[in-house]
Amino acid sequence: MITGKNYIGNSLSSKGSITYKTFNPKLNIENTTPFYEAATSEISAAVNLAAEAYKVFSKISGKKKAEFLNTIADEVLSLDDELIQSYCSESGLPEERAKAERTRTIGQLRSFATLVEEGSWVEAVIDTAQPNREPIPKPDLRKMMIPLGPVVVFGASNFPLAYSTAGGDTAAAFAAGCPVIVKSHPMHAGTGELVASAIVKAVQKTGMPNGVFSNLNSSGIDIGTQLVQHPKIKAVGFTGSIKGGRALYDLASKREEPIPVFAEMGSVNPVVILPKALKNRAIKLAKTYATSITLGTGQFCTNPGLILGLKSKSLTKFINNLGKEIVKVDTKCMLHPTIFDVYEANKQRAVFQKEIEVVGVYENSVKSNYARQMVTTVEGITFLENPILHQEVFGPYSIVVQCKNEEQLEMIISNLEGQLTGTLIADNDEENNYPKIIDALQNRVGRLIFNGVSTGVEVCPSMNHGGPYPASTDSRFTAVGIHSIKRWVRPFSYQNYPNALLPKELQNENPLKISRLVNEEQTVNEIKTS
Amino acid sequence: MITGKNYIGNSLSSKGSITYKTFNPKLNIENTTPFYEAATSEISAAVNLAAEAYKVFSKISGKKKAEFLNTIADEVLSLDDELIQSYCSESGLPEERAKAERTRTIGQLRSFATLVEEGSWVEAVIDTAQPNREPIPKPDLRKMMIPLGPVVVFGASNFPLAYSTAGGDTAAAFAAGCPVIVKSHPMHAGTGELVASAIVKAVQKTGMPNGVFSNLNSSGIDIGTQLVQHPKIKAVGFTGSIKGGRALYDLASKREEPIPVFAEMGSVNPVVILPKALKNRAIKLAKTYATSITLGTGQFCTNPGLILGLKSKSLTKFINNLGKEIVKVDTKCMLHPTIFDVYEANKQRAVFQKEIEVVGVYENSVKSNYARQMVTTVEGITFLENPILHQEVFGPYSIVVQCKNEEQLEMIISNLEGQLTGTLIADNDEENNYPKIIDALQNRVGRLIFNGVSTGVEVCPSMNHGGPYPASTDSRFTAVGIHSIKRWVRPFSYQNYPNALLPKELQNENPLKISRLVNEEQTVNEIKTS
Repeated sequence: MITGKNYIGNSLSSKGSITYKTFNPKLNIENTTPFYEAATSEISAAVNLAAEAYKVFSKISGKKKAEFLNTIADEVLSLDDELIQSYCSESGLPEERAKAERTRTIGQLRSFATLVEEGSWVEAVIDTAQPNREPIPKPDLRKMMIPLGPVVVFGASNFPLAYSTAGGDTAAAFAAGCPVIVKSHPMHAGTGELVASAIVKAVQKTGMPNGVFSNLNSSGIDIGTQLVQHPKIKAVGFTGSIKGGRALYDLASKREEPIPVFAEMGSVNPVVILPKALKNRAIKLAKTYATSITLGTGQFCTNPGLILGLKSKSLTKFINNLGKEIVKVDTKCMLHPTIFDVYEANKQRAVFQKEIEVVGVYENSVKSNYARQMVTTVEGITFLENPILHQEVFGPYSIVVQCKNEEQLEMIISNLEGQLTGTLIADNDEENNYPKIIDALQNRVGRLIFNGVSTGVEVCPSMNHGGPYPASTDSRFTAVGIHSIKRWVRPFSYQNYPNALLPKELQNENPLKISRLVNEEQTVNEIKTS
Repeated sequence: MITGKNYIGNSLSSKGSITYKTFNPKLNIENTTPFYEAATSEISAAVNLAAEAYKVFSKISGKKKAEFLNTIADEVLSLDDELIQSYCSESGLPEERAKAERTRTIGQLRSFATLVEEGSWVEAVIDTAQPNREPIPKPDLRKMMIPLGPVVVFGASNFPLAYSTAGGDTAAAFAAGCPVIVKSHPMHAGTGELVASAIVKAVQKTGMPNGVFSNLNSSGIDIGTQLVQHPKIKAVGFTGSIKGGRALYDLASKREEPIPVFAEMGSVNPVVILPKALKNRAIKLAKTYATSITLGTGQFCTNPGLILGLKSKSLTKFINNLGKEIVKVDTKCMLHPTIFDVYEANKQRAVFQKEIEVVGVYENSVKSNYARQMVTTVEGITFLENPILHQEVFGPYSIVVQCKNEEQLEMIISNLEGQLTGTLIADNDEENNYPKIIDALQNRVGRLIFNGVSTGVEVCPSMNHGGPYPASTDSRFTAVGIHSIKRWVRPFSYQNYPNALLPKELQNENPLKISRLVNEEQTVNEIKTS
């Protein structure tokens, strides 16, 4: 049941005086439950509980953490139809998507459970002592990753499950051993509370310390600001706009003790279509891209918002077909009236730029909050000289840039901001003829896709979801896949430490049978002591 | 030969109008060579060359990089006595230390050479395609670490070789594939230029691109500021004061594109002596610590500047003996008159605090720039309430804090700023009785030492040199050991990419025979394609 209250640790709480409601964009009406914004005293209580919980949670076994993560997954599944209905009524997204996102969320939780139960993720490194080494003895040194401390996770508007309350950031932080305080996204506060209730049940069922998780409601920026500035908070995870992510990054870096902010922000995901591919399959590519641009009403961080090609008849053919195809797609609802409004405003701003041409736009009448998809085109020089055209239009929009030659194409790519992905479309080995284009693209992105689409982020160890700023604030870490756990840990060394006091991961006997680098050899063997 | 000029790539250059000289603190006279500060045009030239060099250097083989690193080591050795003499005349440190530091520097370069020649450090992860997966096909995804881009390394005053021109930061960045611009430390500009000449020889001998390395002279903050703000610079390494490191961090985080700054800064390296150890070996510990506090004239970031114990007769005995022992140590020269002046001022400031007691200070007359070592003591409550006493006094100084009980000891530790190291001295298994003290210490440090001293940083894979802020600006990375390479790289994924175009590390045939995570199994096997 959705109560509208915050979870401060395991307790429901509503001490604040400000309330707000979520919105059903499909029906264009407010949902009924009022949500209580967290009061300052509730924020403090949540952070203090998290700091206390850290003392216990940071040291529990991988096996217990796995049990916790799997129980969260079970409890989220138990929410069953109530969760799916809440999701749909707060996002306007279809039931099919809700279920697919739940599957992904459950999968993420379970994959982190598997990772920490096995245990080798801590990157244990051991160099044993050499007491007789000259000129000075070598000490015994043992290193592993330990959790940073309590972290704050901001829910994402466009992923009410997979990148919100029990989403990737939270799962990775729990797996690392960090307590999590979620700043719930106001657009899906009910869905957030349901998932929070599942986490709290899992906390209680598996005996985790109270405070390992809290869920705070908030409709503005004040509560997030207080959380990021709190001295006991040690890291921040965020998925959303460049403006929002940068504001958090700035707050965190101005602290007396700066803390890392992992903000996964905007991206236009450039697609480069090489000439032979354009010539061979302009019509087919137009269909593929019309589908990709409008997938999820274009509300994905990997949405292909920029398509680059060399000026030619084939490119013109592609553009004309993309225009036709995009108009054929059924319009869909956006997540919220404010997101719809911003989409309309950004589209208008783009269209008002000089020398831009609209090649396709859905013009029939639509229901409230339904997005009219659009494709535009410009000459390379126009794009190069107008930074406004480089900006993301979050929604089902893309701009096709007609470059006059390869040199201009390379320059345009090199002048792009950092991106999550770049895509290269090529036929008949023509990719071999464009090494500079490929290098330029690689320098601006975190993932390079060959003959595919950027939408659809596979959750697997080899995925990198992140990229040069502003795709993310820290390109050195992925936000998707098991390696996203690395965001929440730091290395720690023990020197000449008593074996019995060491974490199990570093003890001579290797009781967890994890893979360790021992005297520069990767092994699961125990260390024999004489 | 020391010319006083900058290296802009492989060319000596002196376009600036400002010059400065280094200083021989032992003789208390200026050295003779004038050094030309880099002009703005030289800074631009160095950065532009580095950005061009990156295009080539980021992709050369591990084998070639290893050859480069080993040749740098050879060329540094070839500088022979000229280097040692320059080192001593610019630092006041003894020849023995110069040689030991050269050995460490050479060792670091060669260990990175070994690492990149073997190649598995790139953390290759491969998940092969599943074209028939339902509901959607799984793409082929392959991830590895790639270099960030040109980086700036600031030379450290207290390590003219091991943490300066060809020191740990530079070696790790080269190993990663990043061009390096060194902002030479003004106190040892001659030593820096000699080492720079060795690197340039290695660049030429091994055919590395011009601009992979530059060395810029600078006596103020302006040149460093320009470098950190330059859009083509992608990361910064720094070893030095909190004030200096924080200033660079702030500059970098205010950029339009923020970049990571790895600043390894101050630390007082708390030592906790438990009661039984104090009782059993107060006299021996006093000797050990008198030696550790004065090692290298106290000019180590791991110097034990804070000793904590429970108030007792044994602690008084330890304090009195530490006072006696510290006075017996021969005074030694500091690195530079300004470092000497700051040491004297910080010592004075400490002594002027309320209720502090000097228990031992070298009082005989000393030569110019020779540091009079000092030990002081205070009650726990005084220390807790006076943050000035928490601040590092860089030099042969330490304060012993007499805590009234275990609770106060824990509170003092919990209130410390982040530290590089913490040390626990314990006898007869008494460590088992102090879990809260140990937890508190672990939370504040990056390395925990048992029954030893914090000075002496072993260079090995299990070393962590770094810690919670302000020990370092990014506790998630070590500055010492092979894993320090992780500071200069980011993950990158290729999706459905043609095998022939992939980096060798990710090709099906595994031509480099590196260890890779393939479909969640760590293996050196090749991938069979049907």
